[in-house]
Amino acid sequence: MPQTPHIERHFTASETVRDVVIGMADGLTVPFALAAGLSGAAVATRVVVTAGIAEISAGAIAMGLGGYLAARSDAEHYASERRREEQETRSVPEVEAQEITGLFEAYEIAPEESAPVVAALRRNRQAWVNFMMRFELGLEMPDPKRAMKSAVTIGGAYIAGGLIPLLPYMLLGKLAVALRVSVVVTLLALIIFGFVKARFTGAAPLRSALQTLVVGGLAATAAFLIARAIA
Amino acid sequence: MPQTPHIERHFTASETVRDVVIGMADGLTVPFALAAGLSGAAVATRVVVTAGIAEISAGAIAMGLGGYLAARSDAEHYASERRREEQETRSVPEVEAQEITGLFEAYEIAPEESAPVVAALRRNRQAWVNFMMRFELGLEMPDPKRAMKSAVTIGGAYIAGGLIPLLPYMLLGKLAVALRVSVVVTLLALIIFGFVKARFTGAAPLRSALQTLVVGGLAATAAFLIARAIA
Repeated sequence: MPQTPHIERHFTASETVRDVVIGMADGLTVPFALAAGLSGAAVATRVVVTAGIAEISAGAIAMGLGGYLAARSDAEHYASERRREEQETRSVPEVEAQEITGLFEAYEIAPEESAPVVAALRRNRQAWVNFMMRFELGLEMPDPKRAMKSAVTIGGAYIAGGLIPLLPYMLLGKLAVALRVSVVVTLLALIIFGFVKARFTGAAPLRSALQTLVVGGLAATAAFLIARAIA
Repeated sequence: MPQTPHIERHFTASETVRDVVIGMADGLTVPFALAAGLSGAAVATRVVVTAGIAEISAGAIAMGLGGYLAARSDAEHYASERRREEQETRSVPEVEAQEITGLFEAYEIAPEESAPVVAALRRNRQAWVNFMMRFELGLEMPDPKRAMKSAVTIGGAYIAGGLIPLLPYMLLGKLAVALRVSVVVTLLALIIFGFVKARFTGAAPLRSALQTLVVGGLAATAAFLIARAIA
């Protein structure tokens, strides 16, 4: 969609990209660390695969459903606050008008300077309520279709991310070999993921790649050492 | 801290409560489902405990560090957008003033009605930049100390949540017994967690309890069935 240069500069990640990032960041990290940890405990490769797949299923459902419920509750919160603002503009219009004046005073705008804006809003209830939602409460109208899309995107990204560290264990029989391949492949994937993610979030690509690498590497190292210590 | 009734009604969860909820929701769900899944695959109880502890360590680090980096990147994003707005109010003040007029026009406020507000903001650069950050970009100044606190809170809540389903496996030797105790204890914990969470988010308590129960129950059931099928 065409945008003016000014708007484009303030571009931040779309909600879908954000959902992919949320799902994949955890998917690449936690199943990877779990598999590495179980390898540290020297269990059978079959157990690593079973645990990994159980974790990926559980994590995808928990994160996906969590995303669904979060998006739904955002939408409900918006609707209930909106009803409340709408009712208040009817029942206590003077109080609501005073709130607008107060909002502007926080920016050192005198009541007489904001008075024409307040008067204009009072003439138009829909605009008034929209204004209060955005400017008093800082709430944006959520996309009603977002909940389901968000659930599927986060869950799918978690599964895709989680299969990367797990595939070596599924394809290679020997645990020590699978662990090494999984570590190399997943650290590479974490670097690439960090790089690509930076393109959408506007972060510095090298630093972003380093950050995802450190999070994944630390989590896996800790899981490996702790599991080996208690096994 | 004392608040006026009007503000209190719009109360939403504090950031610390939100962090506890984020960490504990996943902590109660994913280690629970993983342990149930491995029980479905009939591995040794010791393996369930090892996998559970590896998962809790990995999850706490991944989520805690993830929270740390997210809070840090929010703060950096705010700072960089703020510098940009500050520079624009210097280099292209007419464009920025026109943007304010445009913001108001979206609420059907005519340019001549918003003119006094625009003029007041142009007299005071700090207020002007603050106004653009909040009203054009919808960004709030993040708390600089939040990143570390957020990391520790999320990670700690994940560990606390994860130990609830895992303790039965650690204390009871027999897998079938531990699984049953873990399921009962964790489903109860999910219900209580959903109830308590609702007090902070303003959701309906019964519905919130049901939701956390369904997410945790579904994740664990899926992990159990999938792990049993592939074991």
